[in-house]
Amino acid sequence: MIWCSGWKLAAAVSKEGGLGIIGSGSMYPDVLREHLAKYRAATDYPFAVNLPLLYTDIEQHVKSIIDYKVPIVFTSAGNPNTWTSKFKDHGIKVVQVVSSSKFAIKSQEAGVDAIVAEGFEAGGHNGRDETTTLCLIPEVRRHIDIPLIAAGGIGSGAAIAACMALGADGVQIGSLFATSVESSAHISFKERIIASQEGETMLCMKKIIPVRLLKNKFYEEITHLENICAGSDKINNHLGRGRAKKGMFEGDMENGELEIGQIAASINKIKTVKEIMHDLILEYNSTIKNKLSNPL
Amino acid sequence: MIWCSGWKLAAAVSKEGGLGIIGSGSMYPDVLREHLAKYRAATDYPFAVNLPLLYTDIEQHVKSIIDYKVPIVFTSAGNPNTWTSKFKDHGIKVVQVVSSSKFAIKSQEAGVDAIVAEGFEAGGHNGRDETTTLCLIPEVRRHIDIPLIAAGGIGSGAAIAACMALGADGVQIGSLFATSVESSAHISFKERIIASQEGETMLCMKKIIPVRLLKNKFYEEITHLENICAGSDKINNHLGRGRAKKGMFEGDMENGELEIGQIAASINKIKTVKEIMHDLILEYNSTIKNKLSNPL
Repeated sequence: MIWCSGWKLAAAVSKEGGLGIIGSGSMYPDVLREHLAKYRAATDYPFAVNLPLLYTDIEQHVKSIIDYKVPIVFTSAGNPNTWTSKFKDHGIKVVQVVSSSKFAIKSQEAGVDAIVAEGFEAGGHNGRDETTTLCLIPEVRRHIDIPLIAAGGIGSGAAIAACMALGADGVQIGSLFATSVESSAHISFKERIIASQEGETMLCMKKIIPVRLLKNKFYEEITHLENICAGSDKINNHLGRGRAKKGMFEGDMENGELEIGQIAASINKIKTVKEIMHDLILEYNSTIKNKLSNPL
Repeated sequence: MIWCSGWKLAAAVSKEGGLGIIGSGSMYPDVLREHLAKYRAATDYPFAVNLPLLYTDIEQHVKSIIDYKVPIVFTSAGNPNTWTSKFKDHGIKVVQVVSSSKFAIKSQEAGVDAIVAEGFEAGGHNGRDETTTLCLIPEVRRHIDIPLIAAGGIGSGAAIAACMALGADGVQIGSLFATSVESSAHISFKERIIASQEGETMLCMKKIIPVRLLKNKFYEEITHLENICAGSDKINNHLGRGRAKKGMFEGDMENGELEIGQIAASINKIKTVKEIMHDLILEYNSTIKNKLSNPL
């Protein structure tokens, strides 16, 4: 949720009964502090920060999280042993994002409080095993005892019900909130997601780190390099710096890197967080009542 | 379900309340006739034949299907306009297997009676869009009015409930039945599936036609060719003929092509069809009762 989820989106989600998450991966240390201060000024509801463990200035982000008494941290893309105990010493709950049971087990052993298991259909950075949410959730459930949050491909109340059926205790929703009114994403990116069709996102850059992107000029350039077997150096060079910002935040739909989940094709309207939450609950309740009430 | 689903498996599934499907894609015309005769001798329950529309001697298969009054044909991998009306003229129902809404719409327009929508996690031949079952089912549901059967990643009653939540009217189960006692697959293949772990199947051969395979020596050789950007000629040459038979039917776990779904990692025991059906229903009922009975 880089470039999408600042204090405004997080506060709106938390006010509506969800747990809003500030995505710190795209923020300089002072920007994160600004968002934390603004969140604190806006509401007293609990919230979380997503912290990619490979973040360059991670010590500064950790300090800000502790200073602002963030109640929950979602850690991703790194070793759960490095920071978990420090956060827990400060009374902060830790949720680790994983894409495999193996890493879920490792995270539980490291003492995290809950797991987000994210399937192949999720936007942005993704796992190497390409395990889909439908296959991943029951496997992770079988291997861990702590609460399990499903992610990847969830953009409706029906999908929430599907994930609960598979053994999840809750869900993490990204792409749908990325298109919300309160998201910091550029309006052109939101409109591009709304207009996108089935088959328009693909997992690519597997030589560096697998990332799910919306197809555009940049995507075509990257896949061309991949198709001619260019090395990771060349792909990294072409990627350069600031590509995601250029696309998702500045609205360059041709040359920007557009990270979004496969569920983008099902999202057809820009809504407020309030409307999104209302619709999700309505759909969930109608799904379990109308489709799942009769035993076989 | 080539090399797995002959008359014996199909009859066992139909006797237990499912719709057994004979996979004709791996059968010579006389072999299919033999299976149809044996099925007819074994039971009067309805059943189906899966017919890949690219099959070389398709006219002979079509004639056999009509001769033996097969009630339902599942057509896949080809244009639904070619054979649908002929089957329907003979009172045979047609179900088309697709991997996208676009093809589902085309199939409905061609007059098929139902759609199987198969996600990225399915074993064997797969679509190019890589849309997962979780994302595909609601999209296809939105675009067609005829009955919708979900496929790909379904190996438990919980997954059936998940697919019903997403809008499916039923499910098609492959990998789980491939490991059943009644499956024609070689015992070494069944045991390999049982032993397989998360991340051990991958979609490959995308330059020819995307196929999901269990990792083995053959898989490693193919991905090596892909990694050095070998052309489709070279990959086709290495594939050669009879690779799937070698692996799935003859039990060569190193040099054979092992087509199986991502759900293989969750299958942990060889069971009879009777046990499988019993467990699926039990799990489905317990899932909807225990996990999906409380509205939000």
